[in-house]
Amino acid sequence: MTPTKTLATTAALVALPSLGLAQELDTTPTNADIGFILTTFMFLVMGVLVFWMAAGFAMLEAGLVRSKNVTMQLTKNMALFSLAAVFYFLIGYNLMYPGDGWSIPGILGAILPASLESVGLAGAEPDLTYASVGSDFFFQLMFCAATASIVSGALAERIKLWPFLIFVVILTALIYPIQASWKWGGGFLDKAGFLDFAGSTVVHSVGGWAALTGALILGPRIGKYTRDGRVVPIPGSNLALATLGTFILWMGWFGFNGGSQLYMDTAGNVADISRILANTNAAAAAGAVAALILTQTLYKKPDLTMILNGALAGLVSITAEPLTPSLLSATLIGAVGGIIVVFAVPFLDKLRIDDVVGAIPVHLFAGIWGTIAVVFTNPDASLITQLYSILVVGVFVVVTSAVVWRTLKAVGGIRVGEEEEINGLDMTELGMEAYPEFSKG
Amino acid sequence: MTPTKTLATTAALVALPSLGLAQELDTTPTNADIGFILTTFMFLVMGVLVFWMAAGFAMLEAGLVRSKNVTMQLTKNMALFSLAAVFYFLIGYNLMYPGDGWSIPGILGAILPASLESVGLAGAEPDLTYASVGSDFFFQLMFCAATASIVSGALAERIKLWPFLIFVVILTALIYPIQASWKWGGGFLDKAGFLDFAGSTVVHSVGGWAALTGALILGPRIGKYTRDGRVVPIPGSNLALATLGTFILWMGWFGFNGGSQLYMDTAGNVADISRILANTNAAAAAGAVAALILTQTLYKKPDLTMILNGALAGLVSITAEPLTPSLLSATLIGAVGGIIVVFAVPFLDKLRIDDVVGAIPVHLFAGIWGTIAVVFTNPDASLITQLYSILVVGVFVVVTSAVVWRTLKAVGGIRVGEEEEINGLDMTELGMEAYPEFSKG
Amino acid sequence: MTPTKTLATTAALVALPSLGLAQELDTTPTNADIGFILTTFMFLVMGVLVFWMAAGFAMLEAGLVRSKNVTMQLTKNMALFSLAAVFYFLIGYNLMYPGDGWSIPGILGAILPASLESVGLAGAEPDLTYASVGSDFFFQLMFCAATASIVSGALAERIKLWPFLIFVVILTALIYPIQASWKWGGGFLDKAGFLDFAGSTVVHSVGGWAALTGALILGPRIGKYTRDGRVVPIPGSNLALATLGTFILWMGWFGFNGGSQLYMDTAGNVADISRILANTNAAAAAGAVAALILTQTLYKKPDLTMILNGALAGLVSITAEPLTPSLLSATLIGAVGGIIVVFAVPFLDKLRIDDVVGAIPVHLFAGIWGTIAVVFTNPDASLITQLYSILVVGVFVVVTSAVVWRTLKAVGGIRVGEEEEINGLDMTELGMEAYPEFSKG
Repeated sequence: MTPTKTLATTAALVALPSLGLAQELDTTPTNADIGFILTTFMFLVMGVLVFWMAAGFAMLEAGLVRSKNVTMQLTKNMALFSLAAVFYFLIGYNLMYPGDGWSIPGILGAILPASLESVGLAGAEPDLTYASVGSDFFFQLMFCAATASIVSGALAERIKLWPFLIFVVILTALIYPIQASWKWGGGFLDKAGFLDFAGSTVVHSVGGWAALTGALILGPRIGKYTRDGRVVPIPGSNLALATLGTFILWMGWFGFNGGSQLYMDTAGNVADISRILANTNAAAAAGAVAALILTQTLYKKPDLTMILNGALAGLVSITAEPLTPSLLSATLIGAVGGIIVVFAVPFLDKLRIDDVVGAIPVHLFAGIWGTIAVVFTNPDASLITQLYSILVVGVFVVVTSAVVWRTLKAVGGIRVGEEEEINGLDMTELGMEAYPEFSKG
Repeated sequence: MTPTKTLATTAALVALPSLGLAQELDTTPTNADIGFILTTFMFLVMGVLVFWMAAGFAMLEAGLVRSKNVTMQLTKNMALFSLAAVFYFLIGYNLMYPGDGWSIPGILGAILPASLESVGLAGAEPDLTYASVGSDFFFQLMFCAATASIVSGALAERIKLWPFLIFVVILTALIYPIQASWKWGGGFLDKAGFLDFAGSTVVHSVGGWAALTGALILGPRIGKYTRDGRVVPIPGSNLALATLGTFILWMGWFGFNGGSQLYMDTAGNVADISRILANTNAAAAAGAVAALILTQTLYKKPDLTMILNGALAGLVSITAEPLTPSLLSATLIGAVGGIIVVFAVPFLDKLRIDDVVGAIPVHLFAGIWGTIAVVFTNPDASLITQLYSILVVGVFVVVTSAVVWRTLKAVGGIRVGEEEEINGLDMTELGMEAYPEFSKG
Repeated sequence: MTPTKTLATTAALVALPSLGLAQELDTTPTNADIGFILTTFMFLVMGVLVFWMAAGFAMLEAGLVRSKNVTMQLTKNMALFSLAAVFYFLIGYNLMYPGDGWSIPGILGAILPASLESVGLAGAEPDLTYASVGSDFFFQLMFCAATASIVSGALAERIKLWPFLIFVVILTALIYPIQASWKWGGGFLDKAGFLDFAGSTVVHSVGGWAALTGALILGPRIGKYTRDGRVVPIPGSNLALATLGTFILWMGWFGFNGGSQLYMDTAGNVADISRILANTNAAAAAGAVAALILTQTLYKKPDLTMILNGALAGLVSITAEPLTPSLLSATLIGAVGGIIVVFAVPFLDKLRIDDVVGAIPVHLFAGIWGTIAVVFTNPDASLITQLYSILVVGVFVVVTSAVVWRTLKAVGGIRVGEEEEINGLDMTELGMEAYPEFSKG
């Protein structure tokens, strides 16, 4: 907090020398310092935006489930973020970024909890050519949590709380960090030339594969598909919340993609971050517009939930390469994402795969599209390598997720009872309604 | 994403030389770089805040319409932002900022889609005295979208979706950028000495004029005004959402006004941005307090929707000059804004102009007040020039809007049928309720 | 707004010399400038995040009260923030940060409205070793408002609007700034060696003490405690809003704790801010996880409202010292906060102290815990001094609050009538429902 300047100086001199904060007194930073400060602060600001996506997922999902399951969906989202934070610290971070400490080179990272630099960077001469470890940890943690958020939406309204949370722990501690190390930790996919700037594959398709595997093992909600093959629409209970969640995710994505530039220490880097934000916005807008026009054309009525998912699919599509496209390319890449969603949602229903919020079309299908689309604007990308990497990551996540889901199913079951599902998870599992006073129509 | 430092360096060396990113390796920026980085990053952070205002408008309007029209209002807001993003890129940006490329000097800008700097600022030696084009485009786009958001609230609950969206396209591609070029593009109003720091006139009154024109042509909602001259209050369906929307707008306004300082490369500039944020907050608070006290005095009961609009009117009032006022002046300017709203809402009702959310009092009336109020604190302002500019912009927007609205009305109609309006636009136009499970009282 | 570069330069040269903005033209900042710019911009970004907490409190409280009192709770939150802004400017700021102008040295600050630096730092050579006054004022104002927000939740559903607002004025103009000056203004507690980095005591326990005093004098809600000693649960009306509010507060807390580092002009400082954000997040997550596991263990069902308050208690717990703990320590400190909440809520009910949203457990109890916990990780902390300071602040706030509450009670009463309370404050006091269309179950 802000004492007057004299007092602050005194405090620094008197109270904190043991913490090595003497440098706090030097208020004229060197240029090496400044590059470090700028990149670090960029990570923090962008990381706060990515944190905010956790609220976006929570609102989107709470708005798209029925009111009898809203408390459960909120509980899952608050719990999954919190568990991700704990387990990414304890296990995930160094598994993902082992530096020179790989357990199996290029494949399995380091087994070690995360630790931050000492206060005031005291001790050994710090490396100022990048950013603080704390800012990097903070930023990366939010990506890990986002992956888990993707899963919770698809499996809503019928999965038990604790099996879901156990899956989240394994996903955030092991599955996500291990495959992420292959690209972002400098592992074998990175060496193979795989390009995934901010994670169409590494984050979004991973969440999507885990969700798809879970949805297949869990089965659809009661009443979603009739015996005679009809699909019964189950509308969300609160589209204002769902829209809010989409705006939050859109906002958070500026941090997600922008921060993935990793440096803000030169004019070129900050100009690139600007490109990324402009392109990210263009892709989201185009995804929404594409879904708006397409649903009007196909169904004669625009569909708000498709528009929301169209915007999100646009965002996922541009995430593998938000830097190299022109504004026009970004617009087209995002528009294709929106189109994918409009066709993929009924396609999944045809397969009787019940994805409550559309997470699989948005994060998996558009994630694959975005990863492939890198080759259109980035000359360093190879289609073969992109496809190979999508496949490798997909197989790994599907296999490991299936093992976990099957084990959980065998041990204690992953699905609530039929009566619980019909009456809603809020009262039967939690004893607490989200909107206890509003009578249901 | 964050590979270990060594890997990142390798990546930059190996993978990206074709993109001209060699400079990424130089982690010690020069001071010229730093000014550019600081201003650019400021635009990006502030631009994200202004983006967030789109969510604020959506929540405010969704909260203030009846539940039978909430899905439609959400759809309009999501669609208008997305369309604004596409058309400001395709047409608006260079129409507004033609640089040396005016089609008609000082009056009509350049006809050309926006394009960003090359990746890593590769190619010609970049000008580092300002900010990246990408950050400027990103920031300015959000202002354009805000203008369109203002219109959607006033015309809610009876306008058809597609005519509204066509109007949005024309507003964001042509009407807004053309008049904005007159001031912010360096056109004839700028040369005349017109002062409008962040857009009380250029943004807010423009949205307000377009809304007023539309409201006049569209007519009031069924049942709002009785034959015997009574005004029937139509309460909003969700004041929690409306309050959330107001807080979001308030937050976003820090970016709106703060970013309009345009530079953060000197101590003086960042101190000015600080003044602007403090003043912006003071004006909003004063507008809310004024509405609180005034509604208590006039009606013996504070009126929450007036308090919300009072805060927003305070914000609009300080937007034309958030820098030069003292905290006390900012407080007084904002308070007058709040007072204006409390009197203007019933005044409009007396004229039978039906503005669902109070957009015209907030954005037009307080926008005019704010534009005039510049003369009280900025010695460079001329009352005559301010009034002249308000008039010029007003006439231009009213005339062009009226032509568009009238044309749309003549071609296919702009208003839903009586039955559709009574039953609500959500079911009749979209087939989707926002709160399908809650029974209506 | 963004004129082309040439125009901007011209504008600066032509239009603003009287404001001393000549330095705006020098786009190559010096390193002394840069330290000032970085710290100032950090305050502004963090201050915007702390502002956002006002929305978080509003949503949390609106979600946890019954629907018949939602408009009132929203009105209180909007009004209290606005009044705090006005009175912290008029009285509070210089009372809290008197510099050399103490009225009673170390005890009572300066009586003087806040004023900002001149535009462009014109006039005397500015001190560039810290941050702009405007940014400091902006940041500190948000802390003052947060203190008032804490009170409104505890006293919800039965306190009259105006007596509450009068209390807010006295709290934000006098009580909060005076005690805050003792530590953060460099007063006697600071000199005694009290450590409270971002305000577990100075902000949170102060709000908590004021709330506790008010709750005792006001008494519980009708029907909360039966004659035969039972506690009647009164569920919140909208848990989606409450969850949103918690996410907002969590996000805002990054600004709250991070900005309290006070400097971002060296690599050491920005690395410290990174530590703070990572620790703040870890503590929040741990508080939520602790409440999740503990409520599952104690009640066989996780309790969402406890999880939300657990996260908030984790945040309050780490606020007194977010810098020195390791990630593991931060996790443990936050977890204890979550545990405290789970036990404190029923404990308060046993004492028949009716705290509608759990503000006293979260802000007072966890605030005390956090203040004590400083001694575990910061070698400069003294347990005796921490306890002494907690006591001094507590006694001061309880005594002054009690005088104000008792006076208000004696003069016009602070509690609505029985009928008003039963029918809800929205219709009886404000004549406006928050959700007028939804029938109550």
